[in-house]
Order: sequence, then structure tokens, then C-alpha cells
Amino acid sequence: MTQRKPAVVLLSGGIDSATVLALAIERGFDVHALTFRYGQRHEIEVRAAHQLAQHFGVVRHIVTELGLREFGGSALTSELEVPRHGETAPEAIPVTYVPARNTIFLSLALAWAEVLGAQDLFIGANADDTQSYPDCRGEFFRAFERMGDLATRDGVGGKQRLTIHAPLSELSKADTVRLAQRLGVPFGHTWSCYDPAVGGQPCRVCDACVIRSRAFASSELKDPLDSGAAP
Amino acid sequence: MTQRKPAVVLLSGGIDSATVLALAIERGFDVHALTFRYGQRHEIEVRAAHQLAQHFGVVRHIVTELGLREFGGSALTSELEVPRHGETAPEAIPVTYVPARNTIFLSLALAWAEVLGAQDLFIGANADDTQSYPDCRGEFFRAFERMGDLATRDGVGGKQRLTIHAPLSELSKADTVRLAQRLGVPFGHTWSCYDPAVGGQPCRVCDACVIRSRAFASSELKDPLDSGAAP
Repeated sequence: MTQRKPAVVLLSGGIDSATVLALAIERGFDVHALTFRYGQRHEIEVRAAHQLAQHFGVVRHIVTELGLREFGGSALTSELEVPRHGETAPEAIPVTYVPARNTIFLSLALAWAEVLGAQDLFIGANADDTQSYPDCRGEFFRAFERMGDLATRDGVGGKQRLTIHAPLSELSKADTVRLAQRLGVPFGHTWSCYDPAVGGQPCRVCDACVIRSRAFASSELKDPLDSGAAP
Repeated sequence: MTQRKPAVVLLSGGIDSATVLALAIERGFDVHALTFRYGQRHEIEVRAAHQLAQHFGVVRHIVTELGLREFGGSALTSELEVPRHGETAPEAIPVTYVPARNTIFLSLALAWAEVLGAQDLFIGANADDTQSYPDCRGEFFRAFERMGDLATRDGVGGKQRLTIHAPLSELSKADTVRLAQRLGVPFGHTWSCYDPAVGGQPCRVCDACVIRSRAFASSELKDPLDSGAAP
């Protein structure tokens, strides 16, 4: 039996990270999934991550706390209002940007990878994220790899060769939904909404809801969350 | 009145970070101090950090939780035994190395810096750390700056120019103690021991205790912790 290589996958509970998790398994990695509680406004996405990790039978799933709320600066971790879709100018970085979030997430993934002897990290940045968020661009990931190689025990002798896989970085959301369908991602166990109503229904007006809904429409697939199911 | 620039200082509660905090104030920065609870074996160093932040009147002090214990891999965050001084081979990375710790600490400092509009981060890596730990070397800090510039909102337009200050990186522990004395660091509010006994006394046999004790001896200064005081 060939030895499967360990990898750490950042798992938020959304469709993108669920698809990346499924891809990492398809590519033959032993997946270790990492989810953060970082003062998001709701727990539904953490529950979705838990269900996805179970569904795909990952080797281990760690949910860890991060005090990002204390720094403020984002609608996702403070009392700033989540904008409705279309309220952010196309060129602007949205207020839902969380300062240095991917740097922090990847740093913690790097710590786990070092303990596991893993050289591969997976992240679900997609083509839209790459447009909107500085820490979703390929140039950033390459700089992180270089920094990560120097940061770690094995990096000292030049043995570590960290690779950040962002396999959705050129896919639209609709392409991602089609890929997810092929990989058997259980859409009913994914969550996208930034600002769910009490009772756990998607708001249907935030960026994440509108993008999700358009992606399903253009893929000609049905979103199980539309029939009222919640993860 | 000239505007003082904000800076984020990593404050562990040890002599090194206390000295760096005092230096940052001397250099005219408005200091924002950041301390982590990351599954260290004891709370004494967090208490020391709190007292140091108060002593120096920082603008704000955040103590934030990090679940590093879940990843394991270090004597400081697991049940591995803390070695006595001299048990680690001179060339080896000590088991007290915490995987990717400075990457994680600096990433969170970067998030706060971005919210504050700060471009300056201070860290207390000293000449001995630079020998022992991959993530205390200048080469690592330069790679982190490059990554951090690309990670952040202001980095997008090339406006951000992150600087990681490691002003002790060429100082021995004895030099640091002398500098700390000049800057008025209250040694009785600092803590070094990795493995304090019940009751909060330094163990006097771990690396940190032995290095501290030798530094005071060669600086011809007296360590107030030797007379039984604890922060």
C-alpha cells in the first residue's frame, strides 16, 4: 500500500472549502481539517464544517478559537453592519474583509503541518476572492510559502518545501458548484450566509448569499438550503 | 505636538519583551502590547505581561487565546518534559520550540497593526534565540515583512511597508539585562522560567532560568526574583 501524504485543509464550512477538501482527498492526501471560531457572528458555519469533516471521513478535525474580534476592523467580527449585495464598489475591498485573516489561518495550519510532517496546505480562495481580497492572491501565497519554509524546523536545512494549494483560484463560483457536484459535496451541509436570521435561515441579501444563489442558478443545480434545510 | 506612530509589541512577560517594549516607547512609538495565552504550562508569565503593560502605561494591552496545545509538538504546550539546562545538544532545536510560534504571533500582530494603521511590529528575539530557533532569524523576519506587505489592505497599493523590529537580535542575555536596567524595566515584574514549581517559584534548572541567572551574574545586577518575589 502506498503511503498517503498528510495535508492540512482550511475548512470554513462553505462550498469552496468543502470542494477543496474533496479535491485533496481525490488527489490522495490524508486530510487534516482545520476550522476557526474567530468571532464570526454565528455558529452555523462551524456546525457545517463539523458535518463536512464527518461526511468525508477526515483523519482529524480541529476547531480552534481565535480572538480576532478583539482587534475589530471587519463586519464579520464586529458590530459593523454586513452590507447587502451591490453596496460595495467593485474596486473596493469589502468591509467583510478580516484583517490578515488568511495569514493567521495559514500560520496555524503551518504549525499543525510542521507537527504532522506535512508540506501541503489547501485553501478555498476562488477567482472572486482573488479580485477582492489581498490575502487570496497567488503572489501572497508564494510569499507565504517562502516565509513558511524559513519559519520551520525542517525549513532550516532546506528540506521543507511548503506548497499552498488554492485549486479554485481560477474558478468562478458556478464552476466551483459544478466541480463540487462531481466530487459529491453534500451542499446541504455547507453554509455561505454572512448574516443569518434568527432561526438559522440564510439572509439571501448579503454578498455570500447572492453569489451562492447565482452560482446554483447558472449551474442548473438546486441548492438544498433553498428548501429550508440548515446544516 | 508631533504625532506618535502606533506600533504593536509582542509582550510575553519575559525580560526580552519587556526591554523591547521599553525601547519602543523610548523610540517614540505609541505602544500596543499583545500577549498570548497559548497553552503555556502556567499563567505567571501572562500576569507578568499585564504588570509590565501597566508599569509602562501602554495605549492598550490585549491578551488573546490561541489553541496551540491542540497541535502538540512542543514541551511548552504538551506533556513532553521540559529539559534541564544542558540536556539539549548545542546544534539541535530545543523541544521547547513551539512549531510556527513566531509566525502565528506576528500574524496576529499584523492583523492588529492593519486595524491601527501601524507599520511597525516589535519582537524580543535575542542572539541566543537566533541561534536556536528558525523563526527568530533575520532572514525569516525579512520574508515575513514581504509576505505581510502583500497580505494587507494597504499592501495592495504598495503603501504598506511593514517593519519587524528585533532590536535584541545581536545582544547577549547579559547585554539585554544591562539595557533593561538602563531603560527602567522592573525585573520583579518579569518572568522567565519554563516550568515553575507549585507556589510560583522559578525551577532554577530549565534553560530559561539558567540563562537568566547567568545574565544577572555577568551584569553584576541582582535579580529580585532570587529573593522569593513573584510577579
